[in-house]
Amino acid sequence: MKNILERIKNNKPLVHHITNYVTVNDCANVTLNWGGLPVMADSEEEVADMVKMASSVVLNIGTLNERLVNSMIRAGKRANRLDIPVILDPVGAGSTEYRTNVALKLLEELNISVITGNIGEITILSGNKATVRGVESVGKYDNILVNAKNLAKKYDAIVVVSDSDDIVTDGEKSYKVYNGHPLMGQVVGTGCMLTSTIGVFAGVKNSYLGACLDAVSAFGVAGENAAKESGRPASYKIALLDNISTMSDKILEENQKVILLPK
Amino acid sequence: MKNILERIKNNKPLVHHITNYVTVNDCANVTLNWGGLPVMADSEEEVADMVKMASSVVLNIGTLNERLVNSMIRAGKRANRLDIPVILDPVGAGSTEYRTNVALKLLEELNISVITGNIGEITILSGNKATVRGVESVGKYDNILVNAKNLAKKYDAIVVVSDSDDIVTDGEKSYKVYNGHPLMGQVVGTGCMLTSTIGVFAGVKNSYLGACLDAVSAFGVAGENAAKESGRPASYKIALLDNISTMSDKILEENQKVILLPK
Amino acid sequence: MKNILERIKNNKPLVHHITNYVTVNDCANVTLNWGGLPVMADSEEEVADMVKMASSVVLNIGTLNERLVNSMIRAGKRANRLDIPVILDPVGAGSTEYRTNVALKLLEELNISVITGNIGEITILSGNKATVRGVESVGKYDNILVNAKNLAKKYDAIVVVSDSDDIVTDGEKSYKVYNGHPLMGQVVGTGCMLTSTIGVFAGVKNSYLGACLDAVSAFGVAGENAAKESGRPASYKIALLDNISTMSDKILEENQKVILLPK
Repeated sequence: MKNILERIKNNKPLVHHITNYVTVNDCANVTLNWGGLPVMADSEEEVADMVKMASSVVLNIGTLNERLVNSMIRAGKRANRLDIPVILDPVGAGSTEYRTNVALKLLEELNISVITGNIGEITILSGNKATVRGVESVGKYDNILVNAKNLAKKYDAIVVVSDSDDIVTDGEKSYKVYNGHPLMGQVVGTGCMLTSTIGVFAGVKNSYLGACLDAVSAFGVAGENAAKESGRPASYKIALLDNISTMSDKILEENQKVILLPK
Repeated sequence: MKNILERIKNNKPLVHHITNYVTVNDCANVTLNWGGLPVMADSEEEVADMVKMASSVVLNIGTLNERLVNSMIRAGKRANRLDIPVILDPVGAGSTEYRTNVALKLLEELNISVITGNIGEITILSGNKATVRGVESVGKYDNILVNAKNLAKKYDAIVVVSDSDDIVTDGEKSYKVYNGHPLMGQVVGTGCMLTSTIGVFAGVKNSYLGACLDAVSAFGVAGENAAKESGRPASYKIALLDNISTMSDKILEENQKVILLPK
Repeated sequence: MKNILERIKNNKPLVHHITNYVTVNDCANVTLNWGGLPVMADSEEEVADMVKMASSVVLNIGTLNERLVNSMIRAGKRANRLDIPVILDPVGAGSTEYRTNVALKLLEELNISVITGNIGEITILSGNKATVRGVESVGKYDNILVNAKNLAKKYDAIVVVSDSDDIVTDGEKSYKVYNGHPLMGQVVGTGCMLTSTIGVFAGVKNSYLGACLDAVSAFGVAGENAAKESGRPASYKIALLDNISTMSDKILEENQKVILLPK
């Protein structure tokens, strides 16, 4: 979509997050900086009510517990009934049984539109073995494309694998996105911020595949431009957020590097 | 008060926050940067104990749940008994019934000295209709001054309405404050930071009306000066906090723009 | 140890935090910037499982509640069984009875390797009187060295007292570390960040005394270098994190200022 950033700025999609307390402020600012509106309500008493006005729902299990999981189920079910896209970031799936089980439970009980994760998380959820240390993927995975496609098909979702090169697949068509910068890996929460970005982009677009491609690219382009301003992580993060706020459809179009992978 | 910043730096008011996990770090740093001391204890086991040494109590319902509401009631009641000012930020009131009801419950059960909110939140609490999307006020409200005055009278509180121009009223005397900068709206949590600022200022002053006027102005002046350093939101936020830390009574006095409104 | 930073960057110690929601993002970034991996899981369902892959465990009671205390006990016991060092930051001990009791309970029920705190917190835990306003130590304490040594002996732990000059003691040998900068006190969470730093350093080293000395120095040196970049707190914090990311064994060695105190 040629004018996705313009649409975001005009429509101000409300992205309802139920997310972790580590990167929540970054996720909120990223949402606002793209042109969306963040809201972070997580209590069972109100999540279903809050979902009603949302353009998308982001479920991020970074610091999960039973209370939050219940809220996620409740918010997700309401979103499903209202045809609001639900984006799941299964942070740390594979590192503990509990995380893996919660991620699978959310996938089983809800209709998830987009699953975003690192190589380890996506591999685990696809039913294969992987090593996840804390919330970090360890090791190399040759079959990541196959696994991502299988996961996408199984849950009828877009799968986004964030790595040095990102993969976006709906199970049939698969893409590689070559935008981004290594410094993004030196900042806590860039994975979560990407997920929030997808929440914003999916909030104004019916084709979630297209929304994901644009979101991954746009976030990566902001990361590339930020690297021209700083080479150290904390000031780089500031530059990343600043470059998100000034992103335009023109900048995105000129810098987007996406290729369709052969089947 | 001519020397309010000097008093803050000398007295180091302890501002006990029970607040949301989205902007809590910013609220703590803002409190410290003005010269106060932040503390963020929220468990029922200790809030009443912590309040005893506080100069003011800030209740912010940004990410509320039943546990926190109970702690807020407990802390607020103790503060009331000890004549410590309680500042309420009813974040997102009007967006869900739960939020509106919790905000009203706190207003009914506690003696609140200052209520701070955006136009939508204040309108809702005054008993009128408003649209709050997530935590953002939507639409124009011609009657905001009347509604703010009514709310102030009903609860015998100072009401602060943060908008492009801010309103401060005790129900009888009403003021407009023309300090501030549009970039403040591009940073998540400036509303919360303003509330913490009021917590600091009210912690050294008996006239809460005066404390609010100075707090709103000083925060706005810091915002104006920050805009001279950066035009993009993340670096702007850093500059905002930096300018708070260097604020003096002289800078405040020279830049404060407050007018008394006709009755 | 001459090559501790190299070892950190090679081993990427996983530091499992159960910590407060005020400074959690800073603690995670500090951990990552040194070269470690942060994980912040706190639910009872998974903490024991997560500990298994950790190099160290950081328990920080900044925003404690019963749920978190239970998780801390569970994580700590598992860490003890696996000989993984546990670092305790008893934030605000002395300000409320609850905090003091929780800190003492953790010290009684767990085998803590390192206790870090400000003068007031360490004094209280050593069984003496102190004034802690919120999470800030107030007043002068002439006996801090004796108290720190007694606390270290009582619990067979390293005690780190963070102040303008820091103390590190195992109860027998005691050191003063003269690195650091006054601006660190103007940033919320530098105490927590130091504790996370100790978590990283202790995660690659068997001598916890040596790890603490290096950690305290390295954090202080980063603080000194950051002061060359900014004199205001928010931009100073960015510079602090940036300087942590570029710290090397060479920079540490050239700037470390530690003296052994007479017995």
